[in-house]
Amino acid sequence: MKKYNFNAGPSILPREVIENTAKQILDFNGSGLSLAEISHRAKDFQPVIDEAVALIKELLNVPEGYSVLFLGGGASLEFCMVPYNFLIKKAAYLNTGVWAKKAMKEAKLFGEVVEVASSADANFTFIPKGWTCPDDVDYLHITTNNTIYGTEIRKELDVNVPMIGDMSSDIFSRPVDVAKYKCIYAGAQKNLSMAGVTIVIVKDDELGKAPREIPTMLNYQTHVEKGSMFNTPPVVPIYTALENLRWIKKMGGVEAMDKLAHERADIVYSEIDRNKLFRGTVNAEDRSLMNICFVMNEEYAELEKPFLEYATSQGMVGIKGHRSVGGFRASCYNAQSIEGVQALVKCMKDFEAQH
Amino acid sequence: MKKYNFNAGPSILPREVIENTAKQILDFNGSGLSLAEISHRAKDFQPVIDEAVALIKELLNVPEGYSVLFLGGGASLEFCMVPYNFLIKKAAYLNTGVWAKKAMKEAKLFGEVVEVASSADANFTFIPKGWTCPDDVDYLHITTNNTIYGTEIRKELDVNVPMIGDMSSDIFSRPVDVAKYKCIYAGAQKNLSMAGVTIVIVKDDELGKAPREIPTMLNYQTHVEKGSMFNTPPVVPIYTALENLRWIKKMGGVEAMDKLAHERADIVYSEIDRNKLFRGTVNAEDRSLMNICFVMNEEYAELEKPFLEYATSQGMVGIKGHRSVGGFRASCYNAQSIEGVQALVKCMKDFEAQH
Repeated sequence: MKKYNFNAGPSILPREVIENTAKQILDFNGSGLSLAEISHRAKDFQPVIDEAVALIKELLNVPEGYSVLFLGGGASLEFCMVPYNFLIKKAAYLNTGVWAKKAMKEAKLFGEVVEVASSADANFTFIPKGWTCPDDVDYLHITTNNTIYGTEIRKELDVNVPMIGDMSSDIFSRPVDVAKYKCIYAGAQKNLSMAGVTIVIVKDDELGKAPREIPTMLNYQTHVEKGSMFNTPPVVPIYTALENLRWIKKMGGVEAMDKLAHERADIVYSEIDRNKLFRGTVNAEDRSLMNICFVMNEEYAELEKPFLEYATSQGMVGIKGHRSVGGFRASCYNAQSIEGVQALVKCMKDFEAQH
Repeated sequence: MKKYNFNAGPSILPREVIENTAKQILDFNGSGLSLAEISHRAKDFQPVIDEAVALIKELLNVPEGYSVLFLGGGASLEFCMVPYNFLIKKAAYLNTGVWAKKAMKEAKLFGEVVEVASSADANFTFIPKGWTCPDDVDYLHITTNNTIYGTEIRKELDVNVPMIGDMSSDIFSRPVDVAKYKCIYAGAQKNLSMAGVTIVIVKDDELGKAPREIPTMLNYQTHVEKGSMFNTPPVVPIYTALENLRWIKKMGGVEAMDKLAHERADIVYSEIDRNKLFRGTVNAEDRSLMNICFVMNEEYAELEKPFLEYATSQGMVGIKGHRSVGGFRASCYNAQSIEGVQALVKCMKDFEAQH
């Protein structure tokens, strides 16, 4: 039976990206060697990283003066690299959930941290509004999409300080005004690649200002100066990212991804709002287009497990909600097809008809 | 033409490891999803990491009280994680080359560093002998194999302090007395997997003693407590490691790898010593079995480029020496076949006959 992959991450990738990766692992560019066993210094690999950087700059319209890096360790490592490199005295954080809290925790090791707002009291079911950010902070950190709670900041915030954005789960799903950021980072395993690589976009002239000695590998300058080749980068995950970037461009770029994201989300949220069994968990205006969270209406609470079983039997994979929210989560990253969300909606309708 | 992969890293992997990885990337365990797009929390993936950990413990005969971790960031990130976690007051480092120096540089950010010995004055052509290590250090750090210079510490050192070993380029090529170490780490892209994962073996009761706050991701305790699942681990590189660990076991374990390493190295070093064109660069007793470095004898210096071209034309890949040494480097990791080194030796003989 055809499977529909709604995993929150690592998550669905375009089939051609997967097939091209497997092909290059068997024989890289007809070299007789596997992509897994070539040197990162090989003359065949530099073009991979160069093209990937160029495509990221093109797709996100990255202004002059920014560098694009491929690092290991995941976005969680960036939680400490960001303050190590950018926190001079005081930083502001918008608390929209688990990942924002984790980022804030690391920043407190390096300086003063101001929480500008939080929706913790409401189990992060909305993005806080109407707050102000102090003018004297080094940056405002935001998590643009909250994978666990299903909220998203999809429109650029209007603030007076430079931002740092954790865009792990919505990068490349929409245009971004990169000039508003000192740094953007994203674990690749949602919209970009397999797990094992993190992309970081940094504003070059903001580096080197922090009043501390930074371990070499944690210093963004190290990686800027060496073009992500200070040490051996994760070759295969970078290659898969390149294949996916090519696919995004071919499909029409981040504007097309944005349009598709709206189409997919409209299909699922409309059904959630219509179906008597289900309700969304997030305030309507803050609903994520990437991670669609919903639960059983209270009078049908006992149907949660049966629905999960039914949907699984129909080929849906990874729709169990995170334990912090319960219920269901349909992750709809770039590679999620309209057919996939229609299949999910059919499950919801059929299950409603059965009960 | 058949290619023989002598790359220093990322480097040769057994063909079945590559083919099985490609197969699982197309369809993981018949699930209909790619290995690249499954959740690391999927019930199919936990057995992967569990089996990989168990095989590492079995193959290296790891004593009770040690944890095996899979991390991102490469061995270069361990250069700062090691002192972050283990340097309480003073640490000793044996300086055997570029990687040892880099490790030492990071340690100096955290405490006093004693260089117990160095072969820098001789361009690291030997492993220093006859030195003593202070008794009051927290650990002695050694680089067991020096990829660039072609030296190796293949027999456990007899010292009175616990060691920390960077075994990036010779792990799983020989038995190791793990009990002598507080920590062993290795970037996987030599003897274990594709680039993108680092394995770390830590002695649990040595953790938590450092007098500093450690960023969460840099604290080994974080990863021990979460079984390498604190954040998304590099799923595909870990899977490839598992395939390679299965291969090593099937081939007879690290004892068989050790025997093969000696056989391969004997074949190449014997030819270097016999052939009038070439000479080894390293003192005979410290020659690495993993990275065999050699140069043209002075009277044949002008044949360096022609030999490289000839060997390349015969299918040899990656034998150009590192710029710090010049000449040639034949890296002979676990997956290097006897056929491969014989093909290299044939090139050397044929080229000698032509000149």
